[in-house]
Amino acid sequence: MAFPHRHLLGIKSLSEHDIYYLLDRADEAVQISRREDKKTSTLRGRTQINLFFEASTRTQASFELAGKRLGADVMNMSVANSSVKKGETLVDTAMTLNAMRPDILIVRHSSAGAVALLSQKVGCAVVNAGDGAHEHPTQALLDALTIRRNKGRIGGLTVTICGDVLHSRVARSNILLLNAMGARVRVAAPSTLLPSGIAQMGVEVFHNMEEALEDADVVMMLRLQRERMDGAFVPSVREYFRYFGLDQQKLSRAKPDALVMHPGPMNRGVEIASDIADGPQSVIESQVEMGVAVRMAVMETLMLSGANQS
Amino acid sequence: MAFPHRHLLGIKSLSEHDIYYLLDRADEAVQISRREDKKTSTLRGRTQINLFFEASTRTQASFELAGKRLGADVMNMSVANSSVKKGETLVDTAMTLNAMRPDILIVRHSSAGAVALLSQKVGCAVVNAGDGAHEHPTQALLDALTIRRNKGRIGGLTVTICGDVLHSRVARSNILLLNAMGARVRVAAPSTLLPSGIAQMGVEVFHNMEEALEDADVVMMLRLQRERMDGAFVPSVREYFRYFGLDQQKLSRAKPDALVMHPGPMNRGVEIASDIADGPQSVIESQVEMGVAVRMAVMETLMLSGANQS
Amino acid sequence: MAFPHRHLLGIKSLSEHDIYYLLDRADEAVQISRREDKKTSTLRGRTQINLFFEASTRTQASFELAGKRLGADVMNMSVANSSVKKGETLVDTAMTLNAMRPDILIVRHSSAGAVALLSQKVGCAVVNAGDGAHEHPTQALLDALTIRRNKGRIGGLTVTICGDVLHSRVARSNILLLNAMGARVRVAAPSTLLPSGIAQMGVEVFHNMEEALEDADVVMMLRLQRERMDGAFVPSVREYFRYFGLDQQKLSRAKPDALVMHPGPMNRGVEIASDIADGPQSVIESQVEMGVAVRMAVMETLMLSGANQS
Repeated sequence: MAFPHRHLLGIKSLSEHDIYYLLDRADEAVQISRREDKKTSTLRGRTQINLFFEASTRTQASFELAGKRLGADVMNMSVANSSVKKGETLVDTAMTLNAMRPDILIVRHSSAGAVALLSQKVGCAVVNAGDGAHEHPTQALLDALTIRRNKGRIGGLTVTICGDVLHSRVARSNILLLNAMGARVRVAAPSTLLPSGIAQMGVEVFHNMEEALEDADVVMMLRLQRERMDGAFVPSVREYFRYFGLDQQKLSRAKPDALVMHPGPMNRGVEIASDIADGPQSVIESQVEMGVAVRMAVMETLMLSGANQS
Repeated sequence: MAFPHRHLLGIKSLSEHDIYYLLDRADEAVQISRREDKKTSTLRGRTQINLFFEASTRTQASFELAGKRLGADVMNMSVANSSVKKGETLVDTAMTLNAMRPDILIVRHSSAGAVALLSQKVGCAVVNAGDGAHEHPTQALLDALTIRRNKGRIGGLTVTICGDVLHSRVARSNILLLNAMGARVRVAAPSTLLPSGIAQMGVEVFHNMEEALEDADVVMMLRLQRERMDGAFVPSVREYFRYFGLDQQKLSRAKPDALVMHPGPMNRGVEIASDIADGPQSVIESQVEMGVAVRMAVMETLMLSGANQS
Repeated sequence: MAFPHRHLLGIKSLSEHDIYYLLDRADEAVQISRREDKKTSTLRGRTQINLFFEASTRTQASFELAGKRLGADVMNMSVANSSVKKGETLVDTAMTLNAMRPDILIVRHSSAGAVALLSQKVGCAVVNAGDGAHEHPTQALLDALTIRRNKGRIGGLTVTICGDVLHSRVARSNILLLNAMGARVRVAAPSTLLPSGIAQMGVEVFHNMEEALEDADVVMMLRLQRERMDGAFVPSVREYFRYFGLDQQKLSRAKPDALVMHPGPMNRGVEIASDIADGPQSVIESQVEMGVAVRMAVMETLMLSGANQS
């Protein structure tokens, strides 16, 4: 079997080979979206349901376009946050949807582990589109694809992830993927925005951003998730930008051709200066384009090359 | 004409033959959703609009998937409750949509009779997806399909409908259908949750649930519609479950192979115990699957075999 | 090139020839929506994104159906009003969507000029679906199509536009189009509901509605945009209807076969009497039908006959 998984729940369960496989297919998918006729019949007659317990315009749009370009029937279901709180709702919702015979469920949920739980209850492929502060595997894959297309490789590069690592599933999935691919990963954040187990994740930890950027090949900025902070510690925007916002001066410590990345949506002037976001080293828009391609590759692989093949 | 109706507004206007016709087509439609390629071209080029004046994620999703699998172009319109209150809005909305030349409108509205009124103003087929406490015909049809597929027939069976009959269009449509098909219908509810004319509907009324379940072939639980209760009488959940919630002890009064049904979404621990909902007699998930099939059958029939045929 | 524009941002930039071109194609598109099979493959494989920063059920539905009937993949994105307020959001949203490689963006925004700004940042065709009090070009085109199909021409007709001209992009686009096509345009409104530069727009201004209607061929009513009035001056509904609401008595001043138009949604009893809205001179429903046709024509033209052709 080319891809030995029924679901994509996280980077953690992927081998280096799995990641290469998905990136190679995504490279092909990039071309489809650049054509005039972007429609294929790869998943014609298949049903894709985007089940978002947490609103995310961008990620949902990316999966929706990916599915439509593959020829699938795509249905969006935005589930109100209120109903999430009722104990059994998640499982009942899963079972109900499952009975409608979808082929693939794309699920975002505010709780870590919720998507994995749901995947055990249904008979179709499940893709984790972000679960709490746990994983966001397609984001890590699109970041990897962006790096590989710009640098020709991932292994051996020095990648610095900066900012609110504590609340970031993006950081977590990226650390797992970059380690699996042989990159050297640094994180730079104030100690209050780092998870307690960070030192065991195979990264170098910096509290000084300029040191963390020294000779970096890639600078990954994270969104400051002020909405997830419990009120105890919310940094002032001005203070945050001064120490951990990416500006020209800090960026000058990285290699001259270092890539600047951000998963979006950006808080300009908070975690990144506008001239850097729009500057020559920024690949932020390219990340969005790679996002559609990676999601096409993931869905096509799970449907046609993986453990869901009948 | 195989099916002599332009619209499906309620079970009341259907003959026994009409019901058989729809159930037979639905039996065929079940197979389509179980295939890998679930897409047909039956309604290719037709426009289906889901016009929901009242939110209903599940029913709307079922109609959306049904339409897409038939090859129709499906458009969802969720109309804010606020605009419903303005006097002429319903008719103006109907006339506006009608001018966009849809082939079929799926309508849910909080007022009994609103869907029938709307059907008189438009030039296309209309399906009632629930109007107030009046009718919900596709729910009754999917329940009938579930029963027939499990029991081989409907006529002659004893069906006990339990719970909030007063606020339930599901109960009303089911009573009409089950009577038309020759089943024996019992209802079990506290007197405060029964409509005044219930005795004239051709059902046996019980206030004691255990007696109502005696030797029943089918147990249909209703959702406790606390949101529709005006505050005057809202039963306590614990009290309600004790007397009218389905648990193992009460279910033991029914036949050993009695089916347990619920239209969803369930309030586990309120109208039904979790172990019953997930138990071997439960066909609750099957009801959801039959829902997509019945809606495919209804839409296909109205478009191709009925009074809308040009 | 049959149509020398990449975008449709307003009527202002169109020549008389451009307008004729679009109306002629729209005349053809009307037939498509009247067929049983309403689906064409004109835009198969193209991606259309409806990006509405301001909610508009009717206009969005019209564009969605138009795109689907042309065979495009259509994605709706409703962006919360809150995020609009953040400075760079509009441009960042545009760049993000652009990176997903749409072929056409349909944009509504509450600020005049926002759609034009966005069009400069993206690589695809952009249609203005209404920007603040500035322009709403497809509305003016559908009004023109409705007039031409009923009167055989536009040039030489007397068209009276009545009501809240100050807040109306519909009025503005219609004035531009009618002037370009050689109609004689009158506006009738209280002075508080007229923009300051109205006299320079090539219209005759009336403060008395009956005089404005004298011998008119077309009566265009505007929706009273109470939600856009800042509280300083909101006319009483009864007073407004007495002086500027269209009733039988006022309408009798126009030509006996004068058309009555309204862009919808109507405030019956405020700007128009119900018997007029539903009367024999009303073409209000026809306007809605022409809306789908015009939007099909615009999208097809921008994609296939215009400056976006590769």
